[in-house]
Amino acid sequence: MPKRILIIGAVALGPKVACRARRLDPDAEIIMIDRDSTISYGGCGIPYYVGGDVSDAFGLCSTSYHAKRDPAFFKGTKRVDVRTGVEALSIDRKARTVRVRTLADGSEQDLGYDALVLATGSRPFLPPVPGADLPGVTTITGLNAAVEMKDRLAKGQVGSAVVVGGGAIGLEMAEAFTSLWGVETTLVEFWDQVLPTALCPELAGILRNHLEDNGVRVLSPDKVLKVLGDAKTGVTGVLTENHGEIPCEMVLFATGARPNGELARDAGLAMGPSGGILVDDQMRSSDPRIYAGGDCCEVRNLVSGGWMNLPLGSLANRMGRIIGTNVAGGAARFPGAVGSFCLKVFDYGAAKAGLTVPQAKAAGFDPVAAMVVQSDRAHFYPEAKMMCVNLVADRRTRRVLGVEVLSRNGHGAKARADAVAAILGRGATVEDVSNLEVAYAPPFASAMDVINAAGNALENILDGRADVLDATEFLRLMEETDTKVLDVRSSNYPGPYQARWGERWLAIPQDELPERMAEVPRDEPLLLFCNVGIRAYEAQIYLKEQGLTNTRSVQGGASVAKTLNPDLVREEPQE
Amino acid sequence: MPKRILIIGAVALGPKVACRARRLDPDAEIIMIDRDSTISYGGCGIPYYVGGDVSDAFGLCSTSYHAKRDPAFFKGTKRVDVRTGVEALSIDRKARTVRVRTLADGSEQDLGYDALVLATGSRPFLPPVPGADLPGVTTITGLNAAVEMKDRLAKGQVGSAVVVGGGAIGLEMAEAFTSLWGVETTLVEFWDQVLPTALCPELAGILRNHLEDNGVRVLSPDKVLKVLGDAKTGVTGVLTENHGEIPCEMVLFATGARPNGELARDAGLAMGPSGGILVDDQMRSSDPRIYAGGDCCEVRNLVSGGWMNLPLGSLANRMGRIIGTNVAGGAARFPGAVGSFCLKVFDYGAAKAGLTVPQAKAAGFDPVAAMVVQSDRAHFYPEAKMMCVNLVADRRTRRVLGVEVLSRNGHGAKARADAVAAILGRGATVEDVSNLEVAYAPPFASAMDVINAAGNALENILDGRADVLDATEFLRLMEETDTKVLDVRSSNYPGPYQARWGERWLAIPQDELPERMAEVPRDEPLLLFCNVGIRAYEAQIYLKEQGLTNTRSVQGGASVAKTLNPDLVREEPQE
Repeated sequence: MPKRILIIGAVALGPKVACRARRLDPDAEIIMIDRDSTISYGGCGIPYYVGGDVSDAFGLCSTSYHAKRDPAFFKGTKRVDVRTGVEALSIDRKARTVRVRTLADGSEQDLGYDALVLATGSRPFLPPVPGADLPGVTTITGLNAAVEMKDRLAKGQVGSAVVVGGGAIGLEMAEAFTSLWGVETTLVEFWDQVLPTALCPELAGILRNHLEDNGVRVLSPDKVLKVLGDAKTGVTGVLTENHGEIPCEMVLFATGARPNGELARDAGLAMGPSGGILVDDQMRSSDPRIYAGGDCCEVRNLVSGGWMNLPLGSLANRMGRIIGTNVAGGAARFPGAVGSFCLKVFDYGAAKAGLTVPQAKAAGFDPVAAMVVQSDRAHFYPEAKMMCVNLVADRRTRRVLGVEVLSRNGHGAKARADAVAAILGRGATVEDVSNLEVAYAPPFASAMDVINAAGNALENILDGRADVLDATEFLRLMEETDTKVLDVRSSNYPGPYQARWGERWLAIPQDELPERMAEVPRDEPLLLFCNVGIRAYEAQIYLKEQGLTNTRSVQGGASVAKTLNPDLVREEPQE
Repeated sequence: MPKRILIIGAVALGPKVACRARRLDPDAEIIMIDRDSTISYGGCGIPYYVGGDVSDAFGLCSTSYHAKRDPAFFKGTKRVDVRTGVEALSIDRKARTVRVRTLADGSEQDLGYDALVLATGSRPFLPPVPGADLPGVTTITGLNAAVEMKDRLAKGQVGSAVVVGGGAIGLEMAEAFTSLWGVETTLVEFWDQVLPTALCPELAGILRNHLEDNGVRVLSPDKVLKVLGDAKTGVTGVLTENHGEIPCEMVLFATGARPNGELARDAGLAMGPSGGILVDDQMRSSDPRIYAGGDCCEVRNLVSGGWMNLPLGSLANRMGRIIGTNVAGGAARFPGAVGSFCLKVFDYGAAKAGLTVPQAKAAGFDPVAAMVVQSDRAHFYPEAKMMCVNLVADRRTRRVLGVEVLSRNGHGAKARADAVAAILGRGATVEDVSNLEVAYAPPFASAMDVINAAGNALENILDGRADVLDATEFLRLMEETDTKVLDVRSSNYPGPYQARWGERWLAIPQDELPERMAEVPRDEPLLLFCNVGIRAYEAQIYLKEQGLTNTRSVQGGASVAKTLNPDLVREEPQE
């Protein structure tokens, strides 16, 4: 009798397992079940379907050569037996059977397996908020729900919406609502920044401004206490902790996802801290005949060493291939992940890999970060776009822990993060980033690329050569203290800042410092300021040579600080 | 007495050394000499200056904050003593002096040093062709020569030009001549493809077509035997081996560069196979007081283990920082390079790292390559652009040796090459590329990204699961043999191919193979064909299961083959 491979779940990971296993083992019987009727779709495309970039839901269910990935397709071209509308109820590991129910008629049966693959995915997490069950409250659950949502939008039934959660899906959906449908959209985020698990406060602040420039109202930090409305009229608004009532006709909760791990837990398989299935580096659960991957499993974090749940379509695909190889008798390995991530938010692209500073602290490191703002290509090349890089390393070992990149050149931002990600899990040091061999040509990079510059800057901080503060802290000091600033830009820049801050804002161009040292106060802390931080760093070195050791340069300079708080500078009156 | 650091050469590496050393050592005396009058310019920007993307030569000589990097700038903000128009004649290593001549008055003097840095750069290589000394024959030597060239173009004195050499500078200059100035441009390349040291024949073929679509005539392989004209009228054309006389008013030789190593060689320093200065991993020459870096030195190739000369502005900057650290008493290390490279050619971006197949063979490997053509983002996302990846690995060890990427999404092409480059020097295997953790979101990548797919494809080849041939070989077989093709695309594609090839071109859609096996010839070799190669691979697996083992699938399928040879398909008559 041929080996039977049974796969539970037919989106992303499941189909990949099935196809790969079929290619390696022509004889195996491969059965894939799913309780939904729609299978093998690109769930990550849902925001773009709702937002109109993808006009037809079919696009998300088809191959690159426009064949629909439905059960007939899997049967015809892959010889995989796909059964939709079939739910897995329980696993009998001893008997090696799975109890399944056909939803149409409620009938049940046992399906035997030689190898079982759990591809049960995740489901949106809905916080326990009163009213969250009202009509008009929704989550991103699957393609069918998305079709319904788009239908409502297309019919003009939604004039305003509240998106709860400023993570990737929240931001993507806020963009979808606003840009195509002109829905008045409010984003509510519990923490004091968007993308709190992906970006530092400065990069998040730039993104927040960009969201607001594009018509998304961002309430952060804030919390939805209650969804307003009744069962008949549906949602009429939300009540927030800090901003009172926000009227709206739709509420989307994008407050994270939870692994669908119940089937595994009930079968006694080992589970991880996020509620996902624990797997070894061959993607086997604690029962070696049962594999798990994708959103329902835990992944080893190659930087922190801990477990994480990382619901990403890309990871599901790569894991799926590994499992497909292994259920067909191979021994492919999946060592873990560094948590690479990217996102488009209107005109910006953000990319991240590894740990943020708070994540690094939580993992027991002593993180130090450097932020560099620089052009994405040679500064003399046309259409250069600014790129912000935040690089995080451990103080003692100089090991790189994470990188965050933000730019209007999204593919370029991803290029930098991906290159660092490639070495993050391999114990790379800051010096490795300084010398990271990224390709150079003026249209695509600087000769000293921004990612190398970030490595350099972090080296200087770790070596005690640069004393820095980040823009958020700088703005706090400006508001809460009377610390003085020394602006070392050329003389046409500081005017509006001096108009705003008066005598607290000194201005001496960097190249005039030697002859104007008498003007520099020697006995108090000084914040050194320029457009991005380069000249402030140079000035700091010079001042240190002159015996002034109580200075700090503002990372990202005006280009970041002014974006985070336009009130830093008084607008010149227009004549 | 303070330490004296003497730097010979004030473009790219030299200034970087000077600035870094100054930051670390406030007391050192730093002298930088250059025989030219223009210093510290971005030489890599010259094609974009000539082509008009950079309007002003000043842009190439200024900082990102628009300060001109001239001797006054270096004196004022960096406290570096720059002496232009001063040539180094010889080094007395025992006395630790350099004999220099001031070009203005011919006076000579000895400059002592504690640390000497050779940043003498490279010069264009001019092949020994009769007439190469005629007026109107030029090379890219420096900014002053470029200003002259642009002046001639702007005055309308150049109606047609011949660019000799299809490397990076040749292609960039051909674009510069054509796109802004409308110069009728002919590119002559000795080898049978452009970018012979960077790309496989298929990617190079796509680029060649793109050059021709943009009005550049490409003669390859061909050779300039003679430059025609006389000293009075200047250049009137070139005589080529294969295409006879090409009339023109300007000839640009872009036939490579040679390190300026004479000063070092005459001083008895160890030299490498390319004529560059040999350095250790702290960038010291065989005399530990003399450092060398940038275009004039040799770099350890981290893939082949051999030496190479790699004249790149990015490398010069990174090396410059290392040398700057070390002349100031540090011990920074530069382990070598994998040869990352990128290039814009009209609308395309090309990127490469590591070794091509011929380079890998020359280095003693047994290279195997996989080519994958796939969308640069989720195939359902708008404006998806095709991306071609050629991945090279060693057959026995499965070590990755090189990667080449071509796409109209240049930043995206660079993203893939940079990520692979990051692990190339660290002994990465094909499996590492299959699992390379590149960030995913539909606007920026596929869930199974093209770079992972290239790893997968190469695994399949190395495992003997996929038998492939490349498009160039496929086209040769079509012309020179009567091998049959089995086109497994859906039925609306093969028509024009069948019209061209008649009975040699069988067509059975992949999903119909099981019921139409009787139509498949069993006793002769078959070339399996689809749009990019995916369905051909699937068909191959199925056919193998049916006992047909003599098939090969065409890598890149129609998307590459048709581009290389439009004659592969007979146009349908327009009605």
